[in-house]
Amino acid sequence: MINKKRCPYGTHRVIEPKGFLPQAAKKIDNNMEIYSNEILINVKTLNIDSASFTQIKNSCKGDIECIKKTVLSIVEERGKLQNPVTGSGGMLIGTVEEIGPDIKTDLEVGDKIATLVSLSLTPLRIDEILDVKVDAEQIDIKGKAILFETGIYAKLPDDIPEKLALAVLDVAGAPAQVNKLVKPGMTVAIIGGGGKSGILCAYQAIKNVGKDGKVIVIEYSKENAQKIKDLNLAHHVIVGDATKPMEIYKQFSEISNLADVTINNVNVEGTEMSSILITKDDGIIYFFSMATSFTRAALGAEGIGKDVTMIIGNGYTKGHAELSLNIIRESNEIKKLFESKYC
Amino acid sequence: MINKKRCPYGTHRVIEPKGFLPQAAKKIDNNMEIYSNEILINVKTLNIDSASFTQIKNSCKGDIECIKKTVLSIVEERGKLQNPVTGSGGMLIGTVEEIGPDIKTDLEVGDKIATLVSLSLTPLRIDEILDVKVDAEQIDIKGKAILFETGIYAKLPDDIPEKLALAVLDVAGAPAQVNKLVKPGMTVAIIGGGGKSGILCAYQAIKNVGKDGKVIVIEYSKENAQKIKDLNLAHHVIVGDATKPMEIYKQFSEISNLADVTINNVNVEGTEMSSILITKDDGIIYFFSMATSFTRAALGAEGIGKDVTMIIGNGYTKGHAELSLNIIRESNEIKKLFESKYC
Ligand SMILES: NC(=O)c1ccc[n+]([C@@H]2O[C@H](COP(=O)([O-])OP(=O)(O)OC[C@H]3O[C@@H](n4cnc5c(N)ncnc54)[C@H](OP(=O)(O)O)[C@@H]3O)[C@@H](O)[C@H]2O)c1
Ligand SMILES: NC(=O)c1ccc[n+]([C@@H]2O[C@H](COP(=O)([O-])OP(=O)(O)OC[C@H]3O[C@@H](n4cnc5c(N)ncnc54)[C@H](OP(=O)(O)O)[C@@H]3O)[C@@H](O)[C@H]2O)c1
Repeated sequence: MINKKRCPYGTHRVIEPKGFLPQAAKKIDNNMEIYSNEILINVKTLNIDSASFTQIKNSCKGDIECIKKTVLSIVEERGKLQNPVTGSGGMLIGTVEEIGPDIKTDLEVGDKIATLVSLSLTPLRIDEILDVKVDAEQIDIKGKAILFETGIYAKLPDDIPEKLALAVLDVAGAPAQVNKLVKPGMTVAIIGGGGKSGILCAYQAIKNVGKDGKVIVIEYSKENAQKIKDLNLAHHVIVGDATKPMEIYKQFSEISNLADVTINNVNVEGTEMSSILITKDDGIIYFFSMATSFTRAALGAEGIGKDVTMIIGNGYTKGHAELSLNIIRESNEIKKLFESKYC
Repeated sequence: MINKKRCPYGTHRVIEPKGFLPQAAKKIDNNMEIYSNEILINVKTLNIDSASFTQIKNSCKGDIECIKKTVLSIVEERGKLQNPVTGSGGMLIGTVEEIGPDIKTDLEVGDKIATLVSLSLTPLRIDEILDVKVDAEQIDIKGKAILFETGIYAKLPDDIPEKLALAVLDVAGAPAQVNKLVKPGMTVAIIGGGGKSGILCAYQAIKNVGKDGKVIVIEYSKENAQKIKDLNLAHHVIVGDATKPMEIYKQFSEISNLADVTINNVNVEGTEMSSILITKDDGIIYFFSMATSFTRAALGAEGIGKDVTMIIGNGYTKGHAELSLNIIRESNEIKKLFESKYC
């Protein structure tokens, strides 16, 4: 350990450009000797952000060796696992290996934790890739990572399998925001509602709208759509391609008034306009998808004179880890579904 | 005129990709024969979006002929003036030349209007570029444009010079949002507060915070900072580079508690993190800047565990044209300042 307290935000590890914070930096220092206000983690599994994993997988045409090579070369080049195309990262689970004396924390060496800050700003060293789980979008590694003083984390609970917790915590911000935004009686649209974050959002939305409200899920594959129906996670499910705004708008308006709140949980580009069209004037759109384009959203709404409030999906909100893990505790069906996919 | 009513959103003019709305399309049809629910405009001046103009000007190293050529080739290629790098457009003023019979409107042929939808989705034909006004970021042309049925516009007022109205209407969404977000007693930060939209936002913020509140402007050039001080548009002005988050944070926290609301009005990239750092937990950030990156904002806030609500600057909100023109009517000083720059 280097006996020096450094920047709580981790700017001391930015190699270039200087003055930036680690997330925005091109390259950060992934030397694993910690400063006195850092925490060293022995990493077990990386949970790659869905937008990032999809991009890497597609550019590799699904080839595992190519995915491994891509991941290694990103970390080699940048000192962190930040996809240069999508800008996004993911998160990790591991064991606390060393805690600098100048950091206030309830952690102890040996604790199992998930980091709740993005891999796009986390110093990471990969010694070996052990396994790539394409369906789960997870990678088992031998390696280390560092948590800065302001870095948030969650201790892994005893009652939920590790990898399931990891998968859920990755998208914990989404259902927590739904809980903030959705009120009784509302009409809520969830685009990409058949995916990981979408299912958690749908569950929370059904809970919040109560008996007078309505939740409508828009999902790409018939299979996932059926799953949502079977689990009673929506009052209606639309099977459609959210990159085709006019088609989605038509289907949506045939079965419902426009949405008070729309949650966008897809992992592909070009779905801003669908979100805007199905949301009513004065409604709210919460873009959780990392594939959202700022200008397409801003100009798209203006372009049709739609007065909607559009929110950038901050991955963090207070209590988000507990709220999302509690969904797993409450719903045995979601737990089983996620276990089959992520464990 | 083609005696057929087509899509109110203008999808019938999208050449590629099919199924997209005009704003997201690569290329739209700028044939100037209107459909029965379109309006034909005889264009006088284009007001280029600041992010777009800055990009074009820089790539041309300020050369006027190069700027002209770039603008012409964009419109040639896309059928609209949408900067392929920034994705943004701007707006225009002109005279109504023809009104399709199937459109409900209070307009008459000969009315002078400003379009309030972005040039990034407006079918445009440029016959000749008459003048490029670099400081005003405006281009006088001979040409035509088309407004779709859902396209919003404002009649140009009699009491405000045309080009001044154009300049103000371009950014009308910003002060109108400030009016929605800022309450008495708040601490408000305005990044890029010395620019066009920034000045209007500062004026509105000062009005809304009242005597117990505080408005702090962060501005790049000393000259603009002084202007803000002279006009009493802020309680404090920080001269600094918003792309350097740690420096801005330091300067800001030396003179104030963190902001309840931060408005970002810059025209350069990489200022998300400054906005996040100077905003308090549970605060709101309104990104009006078109140079905002969705992922940098989303992951940046998560990266330091900051629970802020980040809003995408929708250019439209109800009553925005009137509100912003009223600022010019109320403040003779801002009127004079803008006249010297934009008229
Ligand atoms: N803001 C944050 O902090 C944060 C944190 C983590 C993740 N994220 C982002 O959240 C998004 C969702 O993540 P996730 O893990 O929930 O992903 P996921 O499980 O892969 O789910 C994505 C869903 O979108 C659906 N979809 C894909 N293309 C579609 C289309 N054209 N039309 C309609 N639906 C479509 C998919 O349907 P099919 O499976 O049927 O194709 C799937 O159900 C990603 O963009 C990710 O980057 C954001
Ligand atoms: N969301 C929407 O619908 C919409 C509509 C219109 C415009 N916009 C966007 O709004 C933004 C502002 O437009 P505008 O017309 O007000 O632009 P503007 O008049 O050019 O103002 C930009 C301001 O930002 C300042 N600035 C530039 N770099 C800075 C830095 N590194 N640190 C601190 N301040 C810096 C500039 O200062 P100096 O002059 O001293 O360099 C200037 O005062 C643009 O990004 C534009 O694209 C959005």
